[in-house]
Amino acid sequence: MRTHYCTQVTEKNIGDTVTVAGWVNSRRDHGGIIFIDLRDKDGLVQLVCDPQDSKESLEKAETVRDEFVLIATGKVRARGEGLENPNLITGKIEIVVSELTIENKSKPMPFELGDEKVNEEIRLRNRFLELRTPKAYDIFKLRSKATIQVRNTLDELGFLDVETPILTKSTPEGARDYLVPSRVHPGEFYALPQSPQLFKQLLMVAGFDKYFQIAKCFRDEDLRADRQPEFTQIDVEMSFCDQEDVMKVAEKLIYDVFTACGKENIPTSFPRMTYKEAMEKYGSDKPDLRFEMPMVDVIDIFEKSSNEIFSSIAKDKKNNRIKALKCPNGDNIFSKRQMKGFEDYVRKFGAKGLGYFQMKEDGLKGPLTKFFTEEDLEEIIKVTELEVGDVVFFGAGDKKTVWDYMGRFRLYLADQMDIVPANTYKFLWVVDFPMFEVEDGRTKALHHPFTMPKDLNKDDLEDIESVAYDIVLNGTELGGGSIRIHKEEIQSKVFELMGISQEEAEAKFGFLLNALQYGAPSHGGFAMGLDRMIMLLAGTDSIRDVIAFPKTQKAQCLLTDAPSPVDNEQLKELSLRIRQTQQA
Amino acid sequence: MRTHYCTQVTEKNIGDTVTVAGWVNSRRDHGGIIFIDLRDKDGLVQLVCDPQDSKESLEKAETVRDEFVLIATGKVRARGEGLENPNLITGKIEIVVSELTIENKSKPMPFELGDEKVNEEIRLRNRFLELRTPKAYDIFKLRSKATIQVRNTLDELGFLDVETPILTKSTPEGARDYLVPSRVHPGEFYALPQSPQLFKQLLMVAGFDKYFQIAKCFRDEDLRADRQPEFTQIDVEMSFCDQEDVMKVAEKLIYDVFTACGKENIPTSFPRMTYKEAMEKYGSDKPDLRFEMPMVDVIDIFEKSSNEIFSSIAKDKKNNRIKALKCPNGDNIFSKRQMKGFEDYVRKFGAKGLGYFQMKEDGLKGPLTKFFTEEDLEEIIKVTELEVGDVVFFGAGDKKTVWDYMGRFRLYLADQMDIVPANTYKFLWVVDFPMFEVEDGRTKALHHPFTMPKDLNKDDLEDIESVAYDIVLNGTELGGGSIRIHKEEIQSKVFELMGISQEEAEAKFGFLLNALQYGAPSHGGFAMGLDRMIMLLAGTDSIRDVIAFPKTQKAQCLLTDAPSPVDNEQLKELSLRIRQTQQA
Repeated sequence: MRTHYCTQVTEKNIGDTVTVAGWVNSRRDHGGIIFIDLRDKDGLVQLVCDPQDSKESLEKAETVRDEFVLIATGKVRARGEGLENPNLITGKIEIVVSELTIENKSKPMPFELGDEKVNEEIRLRNRFLELRTPKAYDIFKLRSKATIQVRNTLDELGFLDVETPILTKSTPEGARDYLVPSRVHPGEFYALPQSPQLFKQLLMVAGFDKYFQIAKCFRDEDLRADRQPEFTQIDVEMSFCDQEDVMKVAEKLIYDVFTACGKENIPTSFPRMTYKEAMEKYGSDKPDLRFEMPMVDVIDIFEKSSNEIFSSIAKDKKNNRIKALKCPNGDNIFSKRQMKGFEDYVRKFGAKGLGYFQMKEDGLKGPLTKFFTEEDLEEIIKVTELEVGDVVFFGAGDKKTVWDYMGRFRLYLADQMDIVPANTYKFLWVVDFPMFEVEDGRTKALHHPFTMPKDLNKDDLEDIESVAYDIVLNGTELGGGSIRIHKEEIQSKVFELMGISQEEAEAKFGFLLNALQYGAPSHGGFAMGLDRMIMLLAGTDSIRDVIAFPKTQKAQCLLTDAPSPVDNEQLKELSLRIRQTQQA
Repeated sequence: MRTHYCTQVTEKNIGDTVTVAGWVNSRRDHGGIIFIDLRDKDGLVQLVCDPQDSKESLEKAETVRDEFVLIATGKVRARGEGLENPNLITGKIEIVVSELTIENKSKPMPFELGDEKVNEEIRLRNRFLELRTPKAYDIFKLRSKATIQVRNTLDELGFLDVETPILTKSTPEGARDYLVPSRVHPGEFYALPQSPQLFKQLLMVAGFDKYFQIAKCFRDEDLRADRQPEFTQIDVEMSFCDQEDVMKVAEKLIYDVFTACGKENIPTSFPRMTYKEAMEKYGSDKPDLRFEMPMVDVIDIFEKSSNEIFSSIAKDKKNNRIKALKCPNGDNIFSKRQMKGFEDYVRKFGAKGLGYFQMKEDGLKGPLTKFFTEEDLEEIIKVTELEVGDVVFFGAGDKKTVWDYMGRFRLYLADQMDIVPANTYKFLWVVDFPMFEVEDGRTKALHHPFTMPKDLNKDDLEDIESVAYDIVLNGTELGGGSIRIHKEEIQSKVFELMGISQEEAEAKFGFLLNALQYGAPSHGGFAMGLDRMIMLLAGTDSIRDVIAFPKTQKAQCLLTDAPSPVDNEQLKELSLRIRQTQQA
């Protein structure tokens, strides 16, 4: 129906007759001549409806309103002197319309397209209009480009794209499953997968060697701002490999995708940091390395202080930490009131307080200095490399709490100081994760129970390391993976350590334990969140921007009005009844 | 862990030291030397464990059984004179093992791998073993190749890969929806999509211009042999297009995919046939054109017969048909008893009987000839182009019944005569489908209610044609599509003609009707069944062969044991209760 997209019509076409199709972006009447900016997916072109050229077209143009759909044929000519628009690709030309078709009308827009201050509910209800903005279209163009590149890179590396089921059995990723009642088997349910984890392992047992999938995954969680009930992950698994083999695939994949999406200077391999180092230096298993500011251990110095709180904390070096965080030039940047405010910030995350020293011309100052000898103060200056004008903050207490609030405080400070560089991509592998995490006496797998442990014979379960690794980008977890357990006896032992009875393991994972006994090869892989990756590529901070038809925080699709009630007949067929007590 | 895949080790590597990894396909002890055929995804290589080379390896090899996982390092050497195996890529060489690692053991197989006579239940329960056969792996290699090509072709044509939701609102494709209870909204449900139809139309309203997706779709049907609860479709939509534009995209896509999968002589455009012609000549809207055998209309001749059954059927030419189907040389191929059997066959599909004439040297013979004049018999010979030895069969009655059983009979005869050529791909577009189908007084959309009708002003709703088209390959519907309705008033009118009240239309399709009022462009597209396409490419006739983890006809996954009962706690969270009355 058209010969050109709007932005394909340029000064090269002057003199040609072209046909374009699109939406009325704006319309101006200039002394009986009507100018229309016509928009399609990529941009605008100017139409001119002049009675001298086509009286009929002008008459139609007079009835046209914003967002009407037009097909226009006409000759391309240069715009008059001084009328060029350097902001448009098509800014040097216009199309003199000889034939105009109104393909469809439009009611007035319920909100101004592109206005992000409009109530999100109205925008989501009319998502098909919000998607009309160039910003939205560009994100989905990027997303399409990225996924095509993912597939081509993995195909090139010999991975097979294999689909795994959506209607499946409850998987043990730890979140709540979405359930699907079976009509044929009354009282029984499928679950939507939280990940294709066990299926990809079974494909390795099947000898498929290299698998990938861009897979839909589902979690019925209480939604936070950056979560959706359904999300997409790049899922990869391979056999006869070690951690380095898997990392190389992930690095190549990221390099290719980021480069295809126009990002420059992406490294071809990323630095590695142990989980221990990440926690001790950055208080996080996903440190943002766009800026430095590492924490320094000062527990030995504080042990010697005359302050009993510090010295007693310092006695238990296995479970406690005392960390120093230097804020360069902080004494000149922040007021006393601001520094007091920092204490309020860390208290929210469990800190009992936040001591600090200021580095003055004549040495360290601050109320806590009196608890330290001159030598110890010198030692602090030395290990934290303080210069005049710096401030150093201290966190002391139980190690997990100190890591957490000091890690957050590091990010908070960097943000306050505005030292995080834009347009920088700092990738990092965090490796050697603990296998287990003990919380309230319950032993949980830190990654998942199918991760290969390094050595199960440790007195403290939390000291067992696993062959697990996470990819971190700018302080965000982009994905992660592990080498998996391929021996039935190790898998059973892990379940046992987690307090899962043999019966329960059999009921939930019997098919995996069975498969591991029939010649399972060593294998491992990774998964990366596609939505998160697109957010980072597009530079947006809402996951709803990168999903065509997203759900609200209450898991609703306002456009189609899902979820919604169903007929009683449908429930009967599924052998279900609604519990009235819980209804509103 | 390996230097080569098994099949990469050939005579070029003689003298090299290589490491391979895989499964023990077979193991033979020959006078103290052990030969192992090691298998990986692509094929076999022979290992030799000789005490002269490595005593330790031989000792390990002695403990090895079928399907153990090995990693073997050794020198490649030519096989001895007369010991080459021309059936293997690696048949000229063997690897003399110097180091052998048993990566994992295996219990004895529960069935012989590749034996298709084994009870399907056992095979599905151990699907990870069934997938170990080269036949299975090759199918998934083909499937991966095909989907990568689909995406690259559509990307090249400017289509964006956009994901639409899986948790959505009940869609009106006609089959039963799978429902997903909402925890956050008690008593409300999502539905899994039967297709992304309305979302892709909304993307056109959003101005996305060209969309595609390889989409998971779901139907809770009573399963037939060739259906699965979840299936995959290639889904395409474009704006500002006519039927020919859409067909060209589909033709290019099919050409590229079939060619990438090694099929030769695929045409770049396919013939078109109207629905009417397809029904009248082949009794089917998906005629198999690998062989001819069209039906010929003989109602005018039969009208003149003295047989009252025929002449009265012939009076209602709008609703009835009398069709002749020539079976070339049938008189010599089939016995009288076989021809009698044909009548039994068509009776199963509603035929009252099946008359036939044999073409003998001296003209038509058969019990029915007595009802016709010599001239009319001559006319029958002429219109059906009979030669001596041919048989011609007749079907008479209500047109839909005659089309159906004569169409089936045509296929049945071709099969009996074994005239369907193998390895031939006959593509066809069937166009100009009726918009509606009236069944038991209910008006249904033949494709779906979003299909653009040609002219709604007809007395008989079944006379209204639509801009819908199906792609047929070898008598199988590979896919189909249509130009969609882009005007709200036409869409509302179609709902009205289907007897859908305004309230119902608003409740079910309000968001579509709303979107059509905000500048919807003309648009159309198609969908193709990916599973079906892979079946045709792989030459298999079970959909379970092309799905990695398929479900049984009772919609069960025997491997993971889904669906299965869930905790009462989970039901409570979803505000659901099982209806006990319907339970077993």
